[in-house]
Amino acid sequence: MSTSTRIDVPAREGRGVLVAAGRSFRVFDVEGRQCVDLFAFRADDVGEYHSAEHTRVHVNRVFPRPGEHFVTNKRRPILLFEEDATPGVHDMFVAACDPTRYEGLGAEAGHASCQDNLQHAMAGLGHPEIEIPQPINLFTNIALGEDGSIEWLPSLTKAGDHVVLRAELDCYVVVSSCPQDIVPINDKNPSPIALELS
Amino acid sequence: MSTSTRIDVPAREGRGVLVAAGRSFRVFDVEGRQCVDLFAFRADDVGEYHSAEHTRVHVNRVFPRPGEHFVTNKRRPILLFEEDATPGVHDMFVAACDPTRYEGLGAEAGHASCQDNLQHAMAGLGHPEIEIPQPINLFTNIALGEDGSIEWLPSLTKAGDHVVLRAELDCYVVVSSCPQDIVPINDKNPSPIALELS
Repeated sequence: MSTSTRIDVPAREGRGVLVAAGRSFRVFDVEGRQCVDLFAFRADDVGEYHSAEHTRVHVNRVFPRPGEHFVTNKRRPILLFEEDATPGVHDMFVAACDPTRYEGLGAEAGHASCQDNLQHAMAGLGHPEIEIPQPINLFTNIALGEDGSIEWLPSLTKAGDHVVLRAELDCYVVVSSCPQDIVPINDKNPSPIALELS
Repeated sequence: MSTSTRIDVPAREGRGVLVAAGRSFRVFDVEGRQCVDLFAFRADDVGEYHSAEHTRVHVNRVFPRPGEHFVTNKRRPILLFEEDATPGVHDMFVAACDPTRYEGLGAEAGHASCQDNLQHAMAGLGHPEIEIPQPINLFTNIALGEDGSIEWLPSLTKAGDHVVLRAELDCYVVVSSCPQDIVPINDKNPSPIALELS
């Protein structure tokens, strides 16, 4: 019988964990208005990972609804979206932030990034060489204009808002508290998140 | 001085070619209503390739406009969108079709796919092991509903419609005449395309 485990993730940092098939977990926005970049890699083969473009085709929608699956680049269900205790605004259109992104935004060198957080977490799990997939950008408020323009809006989540996901394969799950403090998606105030395995 | 080269691609097939930095090329819908899956890999390192999610951030829009760049997973410009001689409807949301997709749609085993066409073309260029990126789905009419639903509509292109792109890096460009004949994006009638290097 598995016991509950809570992983607190400080603002701007990331953490990774191996989640066994069948186990559910919650991802919390602890203080509110904080985006989470979430990634999932199949434990038996990290070349198979959650793929936004395959999930969109699988659910015929830009983001799954509770009860639907996220699938891998081999179209295999990897996560089940069990519950959404948030305003329901998430994103799978924009890439993880990385050092080049912050350089382009005029940040000083060394700015934390979701890509660095992902790579660091996966290296700690024994996988220093991975692809960088399109993240599941939980709580992230990216609006599309009628002309296809992208608007980066502050997250709508409040303290304690969360989603529940279930692993459908043994997988590495990585969550990053997005350190973006130049565009306003985190209300320019990155804050902690938490991952709780039930 | 480079001479013009035209590569005719039969319906349901793909072709790949090395394009030198600075060289422009046209991609034609020969008969009309035909989607093209286009991929670009950096010749010096095929682990760097065109990335839809990085391009969306780069142009702050779901698809570039003429005069804008497509960028790689390292945010480096790889293709310049020089000219759009079509109704202007393209897609970068849906994954390349593959054998698993056709299995799910009830097709018989052995149905051609853009993923197989890509892998075959890149193997022929000496790269049998590649990631399968989100394609640049030229001429592809994917509509988003207000609820985020995805609708697969017939292409709006007419015979001879084309785009002009310019390589910004030495890159492998692969084009596939999408063999999708179950959902109606190709009007259920896959047809030839052409790539013309100018």
